[in-house]
Amino acid sequence: MACYAERRRRLIAQLSDLPVILANGWERLRNPSNTFNFRGESHVIYLAGQLPPGAFLTLHNGEVRIYLEPVSVEDAVWSGPGESWSVLANLHEASLHPLSELSEYIAAVGAEKWASLPVQDPRAQNYLCQLLKRTPDCHGDERDRRLAEALVECRLINDNFSIGELRSAGYLSVEAHLAGMRAIRAGKDECDVLAAMMRVLNRAGASVSFAPIITMSGERLHQPHVGGTLQDGALLLIDFGAENAAGWAGDITNTWPVAGKFTREQRAVFDIVTKAYHECVAMLKPGVRYLDVHMRAAEILTAGLMDLGILRGTVSELIERDAHAFFFPHGIGHLMGLDVHDMEDLGDIAGYQKGRARSKRFGLNCLRLDRDLREGMVLTIEPGLYFIPELLDDPQIRSSYSDCIDWEKVELYRGVRGIRFERDHLITAGGSECLTPGLPADAAEIEALMAQR
Amino acid sequence: MACYAERRRRLIAQLSDLPVILANGWERLRNPSNTFNFRGESHVIYLAGQLPPGAFLTLHNGEVRIYLEPVSVEDAVWSGPGESWSVLANLHEASLHPLSELSEYIAAVGAEKWASLPVQDPRAQNYLCQLLKRTPDCHGDERDRRLAEALVECRLINDNFSIGELRSAGYLSVEAHLAGMRAIRAGKDECDVLAAMMRVLNRAGASVSFAPIITMSGERLHQPHVGGTLQDGALLLIDFGAENAAGWAGDITNTWPVAGKFTREQRAVFDIVTKAYHECVAMLKPGVRYLDVHMRAAEILTAGLMDLGILRGTVSELIERDAHAFFFPHGIGHLMGLDVHDMEDLGDIAGYQKGRARSKRFGLNCLRLDRDLREGMVLTIEPGLYFIPELLDDPQIRSSYSDCIDWEKVELYRGVRGIRFERDHLITAGGSECLTPGLPADAAEIEALMAQR
Repeated sequence: MACYAERRRRLIAQLSDLPVILANGWERLRNPSNTFNFRGESHVIYLAGQLPPGAFLTLHNGEVRIYLEPVSVEDAVWSGPGESWSVLANLHEASLHPLSELSEYIAAVGAEKWASLPVQDPRAQNYLCQLLKRTPDCHGDERDRRLAEALVECRLINDNFSIGELRSAGYLSVEAHLAGMRAIRAGKDECDVLAAMMRVLNRAGASVSFAPIITMSGERLHQPHVGGTLQDGALLLIDFGAENAAGWAGDITNTWPVAGKFTREQRAVFDIVTKAYHECVAMLKPGVRYLDVHMRAAEILTAGLMDLGILRGTVSELIERDAHAFFFPHGIGHLMGLDVHDMEDLGDIAGYQKGRARSKRFGLNCLRLDRDLREGMVLTIEPGLYFIPELLDDPQIRSSYSDCIDWEKVELYRGVRGIRFERDHLITAGGSECLTPGLPADAAEIEALMAQR
Repeated sequence: MACYAERRRRLIAQLSDLPVILANGWERLRNPSNTFNFRGESHVIYLAGQLPPGAFLTLHNGEVRIYLEPVSVEDAVWSGPGESWSVLANLHEASLHPLSELSEYIAAVGAEKWASLPVQDPRAQNYLCQLLKRTPDCHGDERDRRLAEALVECRLINDNFSIGELRSAGYLSVEAHLAGMRAIRAGKDECDVLAAMMRVLNRAGASVSFAPIITMSGERLHQPHVGGTLQDGALLLIDFGAENAAGWAGDITNTWPVAGKFTREQRAVFDIVTKAYHECVAMLKPGVRYLDVHMRAAEILTAGLMDLGILRGTVSELIERDAHAFFFPHGIGHLMGLDVHDMEDLGDIAGYQKGRARSKRFGLNCLRLDRDLREGMVLTIEPGLYFIPELLDDPQIRSSYSDCIDWEKVELYRGVRGIRFERDHLITAGGSECLTPGLPADAAEIEALMAQR
């Protein structure tokens, strides 16, 4: 896999002689002999591939090292000998060393000289801080910041290898959504749909890129609970993405009518959402500012809600007052890569380019990305409209917005609950390529496809 | 659910006025907005049911409190409002309090007076230690030890509620194994079998009690990797258990011939393993020492290997020299409950009764349980025979045991790789009840069942 050496070359070119150490993390324990599924740190996967729990990656002086706990005979009896270190060295394009020798290497270079990044696993984070003679939570000095920015610059612009992986994760996600759609029947359970979707991933040796959202409560943006009897007349919102076997993410949202046909109100809201999606996608190309894509979605959704009689006034005035955000409280999308919100472990360094910061304004405060688009970026476009009781029933909101929100009209559409429509896009030289193709693009296509179930 | 109050009554009866605090743990983060599936601490589930991430449970002065982070409006917009605290109070038979008030309560009672148990989630462990004014890793003083022993005494003897849950987890595990068996076909992949099994669990809103072992490399006791083309002539070892929606575990191992028929060598080894299983089960009843069950398995397996010509000598002499343990290096089973190795988070306090300690001897060092059996205990019986290269090819073992192991005969059976047979049993007044019924009990039944695929 020539990709690792090339990625590291691109990284190191930005860092000159700054030595780098990254932790892969250990498994989370249920108890000492029962561990949860392991997923290594994305930065490590990006630079060296999938390494075992407890691995550390160093880049220094043109040398790439992986430090690992060697497999004992007892380990081999229980879990097999694993690949030999010579095979691993070849696979990961690095030299392999026992973890017990890492501290010596760190000290020889000088503990204070290394740049590193925080790691989610607290055990690995502690280990790293001890190695580097830092107090915990000490990440974020000038060195670490340089490393984070350089790595963001690399991961932001996908190479051919990562595009291939994202396509594979996208296709798997599509296949899972189609299997889920086919499992939808009134009287079945949301769990049956989950089971049909997971079957696709499990057969491919894949898993999910985030906890599945499969819910008739589509007004809950990230409803954590799956389970409930599917009812004719309801919509089933499915926000579900595969993580392929190599660790790369897909992320798709469909909102399916359980009956296979939308009601008049559902269809009216759905058409607004898909219109926003298609207009946003038409904007995608290098140089476009993502905030402008978000604002275009806001305009279309606002205009649509005006057509329904829910909002009153002018589009610009309604957006100025954040009236649309009660129905569209999240951002139009986010970066995609090894993680579904790619590189959010680094905060907003990846999502917001230098000189830009996340707004505190309601609606905009959930926008995860505001960069000028560049060729090779992968991101989602995911407009939605929601009727959220906690917002719509707030007495203060009701009175402050009584001039521009028709609360009686809201009641007409409240039963629609929530609709979101999401696909993944690669920014290309001339526009964008959908990485999750083959799914219906509007309400008519959905009804036609579901009629064939 | 009257079970929680009764369980707490049984616990507190052993502790008199010792105040108790237990942490449920937080989710593990992938990044701040992407969490892995949450599974609370088993002790908390046992005493109060499934609580949200970040919950703490206190028992003091006849009062049961649950401390929780309240749901903000923003949380509600993203994940729904959750159940109201009055519903939760009723469900968990406790009063609910905001987490921000926990430290005050702890201090009012006296931080040094509380007993607690270590928790796997490092964030919760840190939080707990700060609350109790302890240094990390400080668990294990006299108070904590009393709590651990009292809780073990409660959880060891299952009440009617937990037996019901274990039956449900057992049945689900059986259903999954049958679905897996039906998916076995030469040319398919191990992942197809996993997918068929997971589908059963996902449809039931259940998950796994440990990382599935589905492998043609049955000689690896806990082969972590699933994936590989199924081949006629191979055995597929499946060690797989459900965790039902309430959090209780099942644990079953089957070893299926991919072709639906065993080869002569596979059948010969399989028959020895199932004979050991049935003889061990026949021993189960209150008062029997579990070590004796293990040793009975060792005898039958040794005698069987002698019949095959692999071992030479007398059964007792071979066992005395640990010769059998090269082929049966693990224990005959373990406790089962909310965890698949129940309460192993407490070390050997649960598995080994007072006055007994784990042996350091090869084979016996992996025995997870040595108690006199009591009515209401749930445990596994899981004999196995393995041909493990790392042991069989060790030059020192080969020469030391050349008088009693026929290394040429070993080669005849090496291709069998590994066979394990495991079921879950509840100790009853008169013997035991299999909690995982409905699966074939020997090689002939397996072949008959697989012929119907």
